[in-house]
Amino acid sequence: MRTGICQLLGIEFPLFAFSHCRDVVAAVTNAGGFGVLGAVAYSPERLDTELTWLDEQVGGRPYGVDVLVPGKLDDSALDRRVHLMDAVPDRHRDFVTHLLSKYGVSAPGQPLSATADEFGRRVTAAGATGLIDVALKHRIGLIASALGPPPPEMVSRARDAGVPVAALVGTVEHARRQVAAGADLIVAQGTEAGGHTGEISTMVLVPQVVDAVAPVPVLAAGGIASGRQMAAAMALGAEGVWCGSVWLTTEEAETAPAVKRKLLAASSLDTVRSRSRTGKPARQLRSAWTEEWDSGQESPGPLGMPLQMLVAEGAMARIGAAAEKGEPGALELVNYYVGQVVGQLDRVRPAKDVVYDLIGEFGEAVERLRRLSE
Amino acid sequence: MRTGICQLLGIEFPLFAFSHCRDVVAAVTNAGGFGVLGAVAYSPERLDTELTWLDEQVGGRPYGVDVLVPGKLDDSALDRRVHLMDAVPDRHRDFVTHLLSKYGVSAPGQPLSATADEFGRRVTAAGATGLIDVALKHRIGLIASALGPPPPEMVSRARDAGVPVAALVGTVEHARRQVAAGADLIVAQGTEAGGHTGEISTMVLVPQVVDAVAPVPVLAAGGIASGRQMAAAMALGAEGVWCGSVWLTTEEAETAPAVKRKLLAASSLDTVRSRSRTGKPARQLRSAWTEEWDSGQESPGPLGMPLQMLVAEGAMARIGAAAEKGEPGALELVNYYVGQVVGQLDRVRPAKDVVYDLIGEFGEAVERLRRLSE
Repeated sequence: MRTGICQLLGIEFPLFAFSHCRDVVAAVTNAGGFGVLGAVAYSPERLDTELTWLDEQVGGRPYGVDVLVPGKLDDSALDRRVHLMDAVPDRHRDFVTHLLSKYGVSAPGQPLSATADEFGRRVTAAGATGLIDVALKHRIGLIASALGPPPPEMVSRARDAGVPVAALVGTVEHARRQVAAGADLIVAQGTEAGGHTGEISTMVLVPQVVDAVAPVPVLAAGGIASGRQMAAAMALGAEGVWCGSVWLTTEEAETAPAVKRKLLAASSLDTVRSRSRTGKPARQLRSAWTEEWDSGQESPGPLGMPLQMLVAEGAMARIGAAAEKGEPGALELVNYYVGQVVGQLDRVRPAKDVVYDLIGEFGEAVERLRRLSE
Repeated sequence: MRTGICQLLGIEFPLFAFSHCRDVVAAVTNAGGFGVLGAVAYSPERLDTELTWLDEQVGGRPYGVDVLVPGKLDDSALDRRVHLMDAVPDRHRDFVTHLLSKYGVSAPGQPLSATADEFGRRVTAAGATGLIDVALKHRIGLIASALGPPPPEMVSRARDAGVPVAALVGTVEHARRQVAAGADLIVAQGTEAGGHTGEISTMVLVPQVVDAVAPVPVLAAGGIASGRQMAAAMALGAEGVWCGSVWLTTEEAETAPAVKRKLLAASSLDTVRSRSRTGKPARQLRSAWTEEWDSGQESPGPLGMPLQMLVAEGAMARIGAAAEKGEPGALELVNYYVGQVVGQLDRVRPAKDVVYDLIGEFGEAVERLRRLSE
């Protein structure tokens, strides 16, 4: 294809695959798309290992890395982390304990605060810069920032290395701000997307962002898991698409089996934008967890970000472990970030088949449009 | 264009314009699209007058009528209406009185219950059947049902008259139900649309509905106010588009001037799905009215449909009148049903210019897609 983004990144097909699983990233890149590894869960050492593996797998084909960078790389965050757990009110800790007990989650697992340290490290300057430094040592073709405008250090390091910087946005105003901060590529993400999303739908957001930031190229995200949806996104003016949910049910995805089964069974009505996991609205499977936090009578209401993450992630680790053992209460609670396209995901396929099906259906959709408009 | 729906209805361009204003309906039909008059606000006598005028204006070109038909045509509703106002709790009446006072709405207007009678009449068997009878005496090309499956009487009368029946849906399940009830055409409406909407976005909903009801033709609604968005909708598999919001700011629209100014100034972030006007989630401009009902500390919470309509419509009539006088409090409260595309509406244009711009941009979008995919 001939979009500017294909030329910029040297790819055949402007299909971007965001995934936390290196196997998905490699499969999509090798099939002619562009895999992007979500690196927030990794230590710098682990990321180095993953990217070394990827370099070996893709034989010079391009892939990217997505890091969760705070708006400012503030070294004092390292100290503030110590106080973060203290800032979690007792009634929020108590509510989590109550939920685990109410749903009979047996797995003792880690103490609820165990993941807090790791999270704290990742959102510090040292953590984010460490990941970026590691990423830029590898043959990456793109670095993406999922939260807030990319900090100047990140932009200048990426520029020096000749690596374009992408930024995800949910409003026109954020798109303008990201471009002003140096983003080379905007991912306009509609409310139907999985994970942190705004309120504006892809259909409405994409043309407005395209017009606001031209000639900066825009990818569309949210609601895209088929070739028809990709063709629609590009009719809106996008130069390519950024997909996340569709990879969760691929063969290569390391999605926990109990979660994968829930995803395959879910309809497009089974997601909800909820603050119950991170403190910011994030689309995810509706489950007893989201229901209890968002409308349960005993709920203290979610905290903000990052406190709610500290509260939630330890509990979700226990719930996930118990769900894999088949505990009914844990199966009610367990969920995952996913977009409304979850209703289209009804079987497990190799990632490369998803890519080829998308490309094939995209061509058919364009041909149908061309015929209709003759 | 060559979609099945163009052939079925004898139109040049599958662009459907839903409007309560006959001038918009006539202008769109005469420009090669298909105007649909929202008839719920009319008495049978008034509807007869409007359609006679339309017949004269469009010179045989096709247009349609949209009626709000209850799921069942139940004659006992006529009696139940008497009890409806009694079912409105005092604290809801009191809250409305309080709001009008708090925002200094001076217009004495009608008593709050005055519109209830009219509403009651419209949702009875006599009201709905009366409108349908009137509509079928004119040269209409389509009859649309906005609420629930079309009742058997409506389908059989329309069939006898050779008039296709369209039905609006927000989920795949509702689409299947509508087709089973005899709908000839489905309008799949995404959450970004104005008025009563579901939760699923147009991008996600349309392909699922198209696949579920094939070969029944599907129009896409929600998020469509430009040629790029129309091309996107048709890439998703729709045979045409159904637009409402974009006509509200046309020259022909009888939108109240104060509301029109609010619509022109609004961004796509300025709408909300709120139950505060009808009792069911309907997308509308965010205003002091929606804020007070949905998150005000004194709010008793909206009632269900139709009770909340009885509570709201009398107050909104007063508010609208006061807003036109420039009263600041009324201007804070006043709002209207509109979709997220409101952010794209920034000037007043003749309706035919909207049609021609849409057609032109549609062609450009298809051509761009074709070139990109070469």
